[in-house]
Amino acid sequence: MRAEIISIGDELLIGQTINTNASWMGQQLSGMGIRVVQVTTISDDQELIRLALDQAIERAELIFITGGLGPTKDDITKYTLASYFNTDLVMHEPTRERIEAFFKSRNRPMLAVNTQQAELPRNCTILPNDCGTAAGMWFDYEGKVIISMPGVPYEMKGIMEHYALPKIRQQFNLQAMYHRTLLTQGIGESFLADELTDWENRLRASGLSLAYLPSPGMVKLRITSFEGESRKEEIEAYFEEVIARFPKQVFGREHDTLSEVVGRLLLERGATVGTVESCTGGAIAQSLVQTPGSSAYFQGGYLTYSYALKQQLVQVDAVTLEKYGAVSQEVVEQMAVHGRKNLQVDYCIAASGIAGPDGGMEGKPVGTVWIAVAHPAGVTAKRFQFGDNRERNIQMSVLTAINLLRCQLVGC
Amino acid sequence: MRAEIISIGDELLIGQTINTNASWMGQQLSGMGIRVVQVTTISDDQELIRLALDQAIERAELIFITGGLGPTKDDITKYTLASYFNTDLVMHEPTRERIEAFFKSRNRPMLAVNTQQAELPRNCTILPNDCGTAAGMWFDYEGKVIISMPGVPYEMKGIMEHYALPKIRQQFNLQAMYHRTLLTQGIGESFLADELTDWENRLRASGLSLAYLPSPGMVKLRITSFEGESRKEEIEAYFEEVIARFPKQVFGREHDTLSEVVGRLLLERGATVGTVESCTGGAIAQSLVQTPGSSAYFQGGYLTYSYALKQQLVQVDAVTLEKYGAVSQEVVEQMAVHGRKNLQVDYCIAASGIAGPDGGMEGKPVGTVWIAVAHPAGVTAKRFQFGDNRERNIQMSVLTAINLLRCQLVGC
Repeated sequence: MRAEIISIGDELLIGQTINTNASWMGQQLSGMGIRVVQVTTISDDQELIRLALDQAIERAELIFITGGLGPTKDDITKYTLASYFNTDLVMHEPTRERIEAFFKSRNRPMLAVNTQQAELPRNCTILPNDCGTAAGMWFDYEGKVIISMPGVPYEMKGIMEHYALPKIRQQFNLQAMYHRTLLTQGIGESFLADELTDWENRLRASGLSLAYLPSPGMVKLRITSFEGESRKEEIEAYFEEVIARFPKQVFGREHDTLSEVVGRLLLERGATVGTVESCTGGAIAQSLVQTPGSSAYFQGGYLTYSYALKQQLVQVDAVTLEKYGAVSQEVVEQMAVHGRKNLQVDYCIAASGIAGPDGGMEGKPVGTVWIAVAHPAGVTAKRFQFGDNRERNIQMSVLTAINLLRCQLVGC
Repeated sequence: MRAEIISIGDELLIGQTINTNASWMGQQLSGMGIRVVQVTTISDDQELIRLALDQAIERAELIFITGGLGPTKDDITKYTLASYFNTDLVMHEPTRERIEAFFKSRNRPMLAVNTQQAELPRNCTILPNDCGTAAGMWFDYEGKVIISMPGVPYEMKGIMEHYALPKIRQQFNLQAMYHRTLLTQGIGESFLADELTDWENRLRASGLSLAYLPSPGMVKLRITSFEGESRKEEIEAYFEEVIARFPKQVFGREHDTLSEVVGRLLLERGATVGTVESCTGGAIAQSLVQTPGSSAYFQGGYLTYSYALKQQLVQVDAVTLEKYGAVSQEVVEQMAVHGRKNLQVDYCIAASGIAGPDGGMEGKPVGTVWIAVAHPAGVTAKRFQFGDNRERNIQMSVLTAINLLRCQLVGC
């Protein structure tokens, strides 16, 4: 079962709006075992819409169209579809009443253009829009299904969840597709792929499919089965092999974030955490507090950007600072240990490095970062060498620091 | 001049990754007067890539392809393009050296698959990738240009900004389009548009074009002239009117960020700054240090997430805390004033609020944030009411806080 998505709207092409509709629909459909083979974004242009439809109908059984159903002049999708399917528009009474109720409940006047939105192609099945005025339309055409919906994300989602997807499940006998994702941090895509060559060959030979999905600072490993949940345990066994081989790097599954995983571990242990940051300037704490409920374990911290504040706030020894420099094992360990004591937390993360673009020196080029985690049994520090992009160095430092804390918590 | 974008990758089709590359490219291209007519997203499949290319070449002069250039087995774009353009792969020495240097600088071993990434189609011009291992490729083909780049956003952006776009500007005679952008913070798009109705009518009547570009926490006003720089001074006069009307809200121009603007003001005054953050958890400091060279003015700060640390680190009075609560004018003023003194800085920003999703209370719903700026002449505090989205509340607090400091510095 193949599907295509046609997204209509100039705002998408000029980049004013990001096409989150297509990714949401892709998630829903692939979760049901429907393979999305193409997403096509075009502008509100009758000829382009017809062409995109012609081509999509050739490749897929299900076509989802979003956008161009509003009440203004540039919204032409409904008229284009009526002409494409050789039909005319007729007033759809239930939709007219729905639109009327919509305006009444909001105490807003209903305009003629809104009434016109209830004029819909004669040959389609209406998919009601509970959140707005533009109805969804379902066309059966030469054994294919074409569904047109508004581009406003929550209106589209409402129509999909309540009307389109249930009708698809009912009308088609779907083969189920099953995805599982393992998340790793601190290991490059190519190194991981190289280390897992044998494993990948075995996996592919068994008819499963594998994808490496790199995203900033991490690599996701996704296994797909085209036979639904029946191969769930096999997939799990493949993942267990990866975990055994890379215990330090595998931090979670599916949609986990590193901060959420660490947050759960801290909550389980009733432990608290604080931070002492230099080059990352608050980014480590910021990542930890992105998780709702983080105030249960995150207490606070210090930003010690200057030499003076490293000494004053977390009592880094002046001689140590002078002798080894701010970016050194000795200094970052003092930051973590003294921070842990001052903040009265169980764990304290400290980071000091050269984010760039300037500040590199002999033996410590831009991208050098020392990270330490102070814990009840002492302190662990490690040196990392990232690249020469300031923003990315900060991002990598954050993920690496939080993963170091995770390893400390689970003993990896 | 028409362009198409072909985005390759299953992760886009199944919705695991949102196609932000296409929208970023759409912005860049439309800014240069190049019209993006279609975005096509497909999977890593040789036949589909060939088909998409065939069709794109029919419709547009410029084709941008992203994705499928990684070192793993599912990355087939390079091989598909070599076959499509009837050429073979040859080792590209400068790219091999670049990849070697990339791994060396990171102290990571270079694998055979990485060396293979330097084998590139014979007939293309290489667009170097300064941030990764997959080079960009520029093909001239029957009067059209096809550009292939990696899908990792910052690698793609680097190649576009430094190599692809300059080469396009050089090779094609683009119709001169002249854009100027004014940046505002702290005022909604519709309120701004309403206040500027007369101004907008005059501007449009004079043949200039206007766009309101809302982005998180700010609204950009972009004026476009289709007659090149000749109307530069007129545009400037229009902007001056907006500045006179909204002195507090207009903070910069073009690609300025609020942090850069404030950074420049602090540098000019030889002044220093520190932060005391609660609900924002380091995000204000993080925003300030994103600007390279920020160590010249940003000294450091405190993260006082817990009640205890508000008392201990910045001496917030226990009675005040008890009487008014952590989210109050009294507490945020003490945080700013004591922070300024402790950190020995000229300016200190403090923020305390309820980011959500929980923690709202009678009279202080989720989204309530108090922000204070302590300065040589005293302290200024203000209450803000943002929405119910945690991430967005933090983001809005950051921009609002830094804009408050800017107003303090310029006296607006």
